[in-house]
Amino acid sequence: MPTQTVLADLTTLPVPADVLALDARDPLAHKRDEFLLPDGVIYLDGNSLGALSRRVVQRVRHVTEEEWGRALIGSWTLGAQEGRDWMALPDRVAAKIARLIGAQPDEVAVGDSTSVNTFKVLAAALGVAAPERRVLLTDADNFPTDLYVAQGLTALLGGGYELRRVPADEVAAHLRPDVAAVLLTQVDYRTGRCLDLAAISAQARAAGVLTIWDLAHSAGAFPVDLNGAGADFAVGCGYKYLNGGPGAPAFLFAARRWHAAAPVALSGWMGHADPFEMARDYVPAPGARRFVTGTPMVLSLSALDAALDAFADVDLHALRVKSLALTDMFMALLDPVAERLALTLVTPREPAQRGSQVSYRHPQAREVMADLIAAGLVGDFRTPDILRFGFTPLYHSFADVYRAARGVQAMLEARA
Amino acid sequence: MPTQTVLADLTTLPVPADVLALDARDPLAHKRDEFLLPDGVIYLDGNSLGALSRRVVQRVRHVTEEEWGRALIGSWTLGAQEGRDWMALPDRVAAKIARLIGAQPDEVAVGDSTSVNTFKVLAAALGVAAPERRVLLTDADNFPTDLYVAQGLTALLGGGYELRRVPADEVAAHLRPDVAAVLLTQVDYRTGRCLDLAAISAQARAAGVLTIWDLAHSAGAFPVDLNGAGADFAVGCGYKYLNGGPGAPAFLFAARRWHAAAPVALSGWMGHADPFEMARDYVPAPGARRFVTGTPMVLSLSALDAALDAFADVDLHALRVKSLALTDMFMALLDPVAERLALTLVTPREPAQRGSQVSYRHPQAREVMADLIAAGLVGDFRTPDILRFGFTPLYHSFADVYRAARGVQAMLEARA
Repeated sequence: MPTQTVLADLTTLPVPADVLALDARDPLAHKRDEFLLPDGVIYLDGNSLGALSRRVVQRVRHVTEEEWGRALIGSWTLGAQEGRDWMALPDRVAAKIARLIGAQPDEVAVGDSTSVNTFKVLAAALGVAAPERRVLLTDADNFPTDLYVAQGLTALLGGGYELRRVPADEVAAHLRPDVAAVLLTQVDYRTGRCLDLAAISAQARAAGVLTIWDLAHSAGAFPVDLNGAGADFAVGCGYKYLNGGPGAPAFLFAARRWHAAAPVALSGWMGHADPFEMARDYVPAPGARRFVTGTPMVLSLSALDAALDAFADVDLHALRVKSLALTDMFMALLDPVAERLALTLVTPREPAQRGSQVSYRHPQAREVMADLIAAGLVGDFRTPDILRFGFTPLYHSFADVYRAARGVQAMLEARA
Repeated sequence: MPTQTVLADLTTLPVPADVLALDARDPLAHKRDEFLLPDGVIYLDGNSLGALSRRVVQRVRHVTEEEWGRALIGSWTLGAQEGRDWMALPDRVAAKIARLIGAQPDEVAVGDSTSVNTFKVLAAALGVAAPERRVLLTDADNFPTDLYVAQGLTALLGGGYELRRVPADEVAAHLRPDVAAVLLTQVDYRTGRCLDLAAISAQARAAGVLTIWDLAHSAGAFPVDLNGAGADFAVGCGYKYLNGGPGAPAFLFAARRWHAAAPVALSGWMGHADPFEMARDYVPAPGARRFVTGTPMVLSLSALDAALDAFADVDLHALRVKSLALTDMFMALLDPVAERLALTLVTPREPAQRGSQVSYRHPQAREVMADLIAAGLVGDFRTPDILRFGFTPLYHSFADVYRAARGVQAMLEARA
């Protein structure tokens, strides 16, 4: 059977009453209408690129055609009283993100890519660590750009700085007296395994090691409590669960206790205490604003700003409850057929250890995912053999999950 | 006379026949219709934020509502054959910019802010300089973010690296054996003074010093020939004369001869030879693409991409001829009244030493510019006492220049 016809009417596949009942009592069900999802597609890749919301469409048109096109340079300061000026845009977005990650607004800086922010917090952390601690510890299977940025920074610094990559389950055993900081991604991008941020932060603190958390697959997916955990630094991504658009500006977190001492390696004029004073010497702005470097990319940042408003009326614990229910259902539907279809679950079943995705190994994962995508069931392939399905509680229904699981099953049965 | 009425009908002020004749034979006159300029305003601040073009409006709508909203994650690779995929977007924009600055496409990397790009090229230059050369030389009055970024990098590196700031006219005398590189902005943002890029690059090369040019007020304003001058590195801004929108992605130039040896300090996955291989070790992409760091901000980068198409049919030498004619006319109209109105010209009269702006000192510059802007004549104030007027040959007419000069005169006479 040609793969393109296996899932021909997947988005209209009848859904059992008990699944429809879950949607009927979903307290987040109304959020779906805020998003513009393409017809005929079940999109389970919001952990790679979040969907477009209606308010972003309006905002991008407004910022382009009115704020830039008509008000031009004036928009940098216009509306400062009401908080609409471009100069303060990074701070406004920071405040919205702070709520999602358990931070104070002045502990968050928004702008640049996750990679560049990782460089900033790594340099800040190494700068406040005791001089005899020159090892940057990380999970050897961390997301590649975290590894690459750490390689670039330690090479640049020289002077005995070293990136030490160890297996994920050996990180705790490596919190030794020569370690300055540990860089970990809370949710593994392949498996969806979620680390205990509070416990590991406490372990590290007890060992005198600073924590740097990559929240790429955490922020906006479930509540994060950086300050509750006593975390030191963090970074995160604007274009996954925050739905800020392709390559949206990223963010960093720096705990208040480090603001005075941490060096600002990328010290640009937008992190200066008074950018238009045009002073000859860099004087950092108060708080994490100092980590904003150059002129913010206003179009992309405005899209993220508008996208974040989707969270304004959302209880993050309700978001987590729904996320776990979605991923639980997906696994439960595939459990009975998984072995027969050569699917090996790699996502932890324990809720506390799971992000907002479900991943399986499959020997033909690359080809299977290509066929699924061609048929309108969009997940992600990750090397070497992973089928990844991301669930976004803001815009996914339980009916979506049911249809997706049945679609995966049908596709694999057709290939068998 | 209230200042708001002095210039009430400036944009309809009658223009002499000889000025209209210049517009009638301007080979670039047709370009103005490509831009959306607000009514009732003469906008002489394109050197701070370039104007919006019609093609950018269309492109931003398309990338947001179609490429992101409908094609979603697929847009990263869709249309790769025809060069429309997001993955190659930085390279496509780089090729368009390369033509404007005398570079090969593979010598330009696009993305991040000018500040972040400055960090990248400074780190690259210091990394290829002889180890005994640890001084980074710059003009003490360089644009602040250049100074701040250089401060941040030299502090980060430690090890005897030093930022040496000298008066602009003493730079040549300081090209000494301990100097690794010289960082200069070709066109001074206050005065519009344009340095002889070729001559200074040759002097530096003869002294064994690498050149790093900030082209913020050069690229798109007049032809630049980096390779003709044998320049080593450069950075530039996307939101001034390139009209890429507020905070548009910036660019860097790295001469081919340095690609193999120059370290990539900000080594992110989008500069990896194969980003989706998810390899554990950073392997740089060929050419300057290695200097692309994180995921590109696609909305902002698409706006810049579309904006650059305004240059496709433009002879850059014709652009320069018109630019000089516009600034010549502005000065000539104000010359007879300048002394009486306390205007002191600070822009060089010599064409080769002038960018695409005209600046005057005035004892009440801040208040005068506020009044001009309120009346619809938008220039810029720069500390401590500079009135700055930027001229963009793509969308300014000689009639604009005439009216602007008369407007400045009328405003100052009304205040006298």
